[in-house]
Amino acid sequence: MTAAEDTAEETVPRVDFDPDPSQYRHWRLEIDPADPAVAWVRLDVDAAGGLVAGYELKMNSYDLGVDIELHDITQRLRFCHPGVRAVVLTSAKDRNFSAGANIRMLAGSPHPWKVNFCRFTNETRNGIEDSSAHSGRRWIAALNGTAAGGGYEMALACDTILLVDDNSATVALPEVPLLGVLPGTGGLTRVTDKRRVRKDRADVFATRPEGIGGRQAVEWRLVDEVVPPRRWDETVAERAAEAAAASSGAPAGDGIALPPLDRTETADGIFYPHVRAEFDRGRGLVEITVDGPTGAGHVPESIERVHEQGADFWPLAMTRQLDDLILRLRANELELGTWVLRTRGAVEDALALERVIERYSGQDWLVDEIRHYFKRTLKRLDVTPRSLIALIEPGSCFAGALLELALACDRQYMLDGTLDDGDGEQGDEAQIMLSPSNFGTFPMPNGLSRLASRFWGDDDHIGKLGQETGRRIEAREAAELGLVTDAPDDIDWDDEIRIMLEERAALSPDALTGMEANHRFVGPETMESRIFGRLTAWQNWIFVRPNASGPDGALRRYGTGRRADFDRRRV
Amino acid sequence: MTAAEDTAEETVPRVDFDPDPSQYRHWRLEIDPADPAVAWVRLDVDAAGGLVAGYELKMNSYDLGVDIELHDITQRLRFCHPGVRAVVLTSAKDRNFSAGANIRMLAGSPHPWKVNFCRFTNETRNGIEDSSAHSGRRWIAALNGTAAGGGYEMALACDTILLVDDNSATVALPEVPLLGVLPGTGGLTRVTDKRRVRKDRADVFATRPEGIGGRQAVEWRLVDEVVPPRRWDETVAERAAEAAAASSGAPAGDGIALPPLDRTETADGIFYPHVRAEFDRGRGLVEITVDGPTGAGHVPESIERVHEQGADFWPLAMTRQLDDLILRLRANELELGTWVLRTRGAVEDALALERVIERYSGQDWLVDEIRHYFKRTLKRLDVTPRSLIALIEPGSCFAGALLELALACDRQYMLDGTLDDGDGEQGDEAQIMLSPSNFGTFPMPNGLSRLASRFWGDDDHIGKLGQETGRRIEAREAAELGLVTDAPDDIDWDDEIRIMLEERAALSPDALTGMEANHRFVGPETMESRIFGRLTAWQNWIFVRPNASGPDGALRRYGTGRRADFDRRRV
Repeated sequence: MTAAEDTAEETVPRVDFDPDPSQYRHWRLEIDPADPAVAWVRLDVDAAGGLVAGYELKMNSYDLGVDIELHDITQRLRFCHPGVRAVVLTSAKDRNFSAGANIRMLAGSPHPWKVNFCRFTNETRNGIEDSSAHSGRRWIAALNGTAAGGGYEMALACDTILLVDDNSATVALPEVPLLGVLPGTGGLTRVTDKRRVRKDRADVFATRPEGIGGRQAVEWRLVDEVVPPRRWDETVAERAAEAAAASSGAPAGDGIALPPLDRTETADGIFYPHVRAEFDRGRGLVEITVDGPTGAGHVPESIERVHEQGADFWPLAMTRQLDDLILRLRANELELGTWVLRTRGAVEDALALERVIERYSGQDWLVDEIRHYFKRTLKRLDVTPRSLIALIEPGSCFAGALLELALACDRQYMLDGTLDDGDGEQGDEAQIMLSPSNFGTFPMPNGLSRLASRFWGDDDHIGKLGQETGRRIEAREAAELGLVTDAPDDIDWDDEIRIMLEERAALSPDALTGMEANHRFVGPETMESRIFGRLTAWQNWIFVRPNASGPDGALRRYGTGRRADFDRRRV
Repeated sequence: MTAAEDTAEETVPRVDFDPDPSQYRHWRLEIDPADPAVAWVRLDVDAAGGLVAGYELKMNSYDLGVDIELHDITQRLRFCHPGVRAVVLTSAKDRNFSAGANIRMLAGSPHPWKVNFCRFTNETRNGIEDSSAHSGRRWIAALNGTAAGGGYEMALACDTILLVDDNSATVALPEVPLLGVLPGTGGLTRVTDKRRVRKDRADVFATRPEGIGGRQAVEWRLVDEVVPPRRWDETVAERAAEAAAASSGAPAGDGIALPPLDRTETADGIFYPHVRAEFDRGRGLVEITVDGPTGAGHVPESIERVHEQGADFWPLAMTRQLDDLILRLRANELELGTWVLRTRGAVEDALALERVIERYSGQDWLVDEIRHYFKRTLKRLDVTPRSLIALIEPGSCFAGALLELALACDRQYMLDGTLDDGDGEQGDEAQIMLSPSNFGTFPMPNGLSRLASRFWGDDDHIGKLGQETGRRIEAREAAELGLVTDAPDDIDWDDEIRIMLEERAALSPDALTGMEANHRFVGPETMESRIFGRLTAWQNWIFVRPNASGPDGALRRYGTGRRADFDRRRV
């Protein structure tokens, strides 16, 4: 197989990530009128509603489109329904929870699509766990029928798993025995590390296509409780009410609205009010600019005003736009291999807003949700398979939370000097500013702050940086403090950046992806970083091997009645 | 590309892993006559001495054969030269340390060969670090010329790196920019996690083919010291003498001899005095049996007697044989996808010998070296891409250290009952026995004992097991304690084992490799487990992608004067 052949075989559709909640095709979100602390999230896949032609979403199996709706629900639960304390994730189909990711979809998808699909679904599962950890919500998977593969992995992201005990329902990870691939949404890792299933049992479980149900599923810790059908509805409702009652008190006040994003897409870029992305296809890159908040009017004078602004409050508005942009670029612009990140604005204005966030952190649910949402958006950058380059120029506002955008990049370049502003006058020099939020507010998937990852093992230096918050730091000092990779002067800037970007674009896209995935996560690991690092890498390898995706491979032959023809050599 | 085509293109030679030290082709090991605490290990590759035809080992580049000799040297330093306190790893070539793994060898190698090559070289680098950590030896890389790619990775395994400062010598990781693959021997991980190079600098370094030398190499922590040529010999000798003096006192006594292994290879198996492997090609498996020590004569009455027995002392003899077998099966028997492990002997005899080891641990260098060698051999099992199944039957001796063999397996089956011994008499039931050595003496690459991995998060149970040492545990109790996966009775045993092995053999070899690599390492990670887990998985993926190994890929086009033709899509 040559690179050219690989290219020829594959086409991917363009994807939207912001569904209209009144038009969900595959899910139903219901807040219990009797108990508004309990939300019911019911999977009811429209088999004819696949995102791409060529497969039917039978048996509550899912594709990216189904998961995009689930992701939207998790976001709306957090912002629009803050009073919800327990979420019951269940199925609207009779005696069937979910068959997992649709196999024909997987078999028919080009490699980048499969990988991007798994990445997004993983982020959505992690988002459920983030909501458990930080929004005080308990997620209960109520498996009213068999949950197989990705269906069970959805349940694994929940805090509690209930399974109906009807002598047929099981939980299963049939990917290895049936498809010759791995469970792609963290199943192997969560079974051992979260559910603490013994690893030899995990091995048995992940090679048994029919799965495990009933008492054994509880004994092996695969589920928390099995419930006879006659007591099912009552028990699920009980568990939900108990979880809601046990959860921390619901916040006062109503949720906010999340109106559709204001977005313009053209052949040349994607544009939002605070974020814009300009494509440079010739150079294989996209220039992303985040506009910081500007003017005193952007700083709400009270927390009530923050709630009134709601989705217009700059930190939330900007985060929604940036998040949407990341998802679109990852899914739809595979050949833009380098993302160049800039900000525009005033460092003081950015920090003024951040002080509002800081003042109400832990006090106000909306402020907390915004903070966690920005954290999740930064985590998307951390696992984005693109080269990320921050350019810190005069007129930028990489301060505090916005500095995290630069620190999430593989490299940071800061201009040392001023730029001619066009009328012969010299403007200010570029500045960055540290704030307390750079020291743990936005942890990476490995649990470390970006500064702690950057200066891994050098706690003294991190301590020293902690003394530098709130102070303007210019290029040369930023380089000395190790906060930027290089600080070319105004004479060299254009050439150095141009050459660096050209060199980057000339490298092997695959080698860059592997290298960046290794460098970004220094030091310790978490379940989350292991899912993206270890599990994803193995899955990607397996996906491209003929034993899975070749014409005789297990993934392609599934359902044809013919067994896969394996190359039996172990690698 | 189909599975069949993939098979057709590839042939791999059979490999021996036990070179005759008097016949090394590529290395020179010299103990300094003036200072026997210092060993000089000089790389002097015979360009015509490649293991396979088709490439020349120019510029001190290496292939598996070169690394097999380095591995042999590391072993002999530990067992034959215990007085050595400092090891200088350098090159015998003028102004050239090593160009790393030979590129034509890599480009011409089939996928399984590349992966197996990287695994073995990684184990050898880890072995150098193990020797630093546990043998009180300091390894000094004396880079008398450029160390590129695997050459620099060899240096990274050392404690100290000296680089000649001659305005041309550099250290470099040119794999990404020149070859479109990753550094394959832990380079990315050690640069950030061991040398603590800032990750943005690591990114610059790993994309700069010419590397970095001189003062900048020190500033970036890529090396510890640069030395002008005129002071080179003197400085290296000084640093070696200082390291030897600073190291813990050299043990009294001489080393032992490591004579050639007594090994018989036939079409049906590989046979050593204490270990035998019988191939069953039809079922795609190999049955491995380790004979435990038998009879009182095997227990030396004194530590002097242990030294007299030397390589014949059962724990060392068995470990050498098992280690050699693992290496041979991994390299030469790719289609034997399942390893069935058994032991034969008496649990008391095994533990009697272990008590000798225990008594002299930390007191006697040879006993310590044997213990660490068995630890490293078990670690090879942990990263072996084969399904490992322990069968615990009557007449076996899975006790203490030998029980680790079973715990290293993906599953453990223990026969509940007795077997007819042929004359109508019933023998004893199968037994296992825990000993203190199961609780941390033989950590896995993730730093945990195999029991701690097995019962990850359940410290209470591990504590409870600690109360059960030295007691015979039969099948049903072993199952209750979670020490075995299943305990079929004597009526079901044959059928259950047969079916289980058939089912295993039917699964996708790639999916099994990925699944096992995920399940075996539960919980925390170390640099070592991350190299095998994250880095290896990404590298394997990149190796099979057309951008590296396709006819137009970077690895295949290197040296042809034609640039790689990349599929530019990011995955």
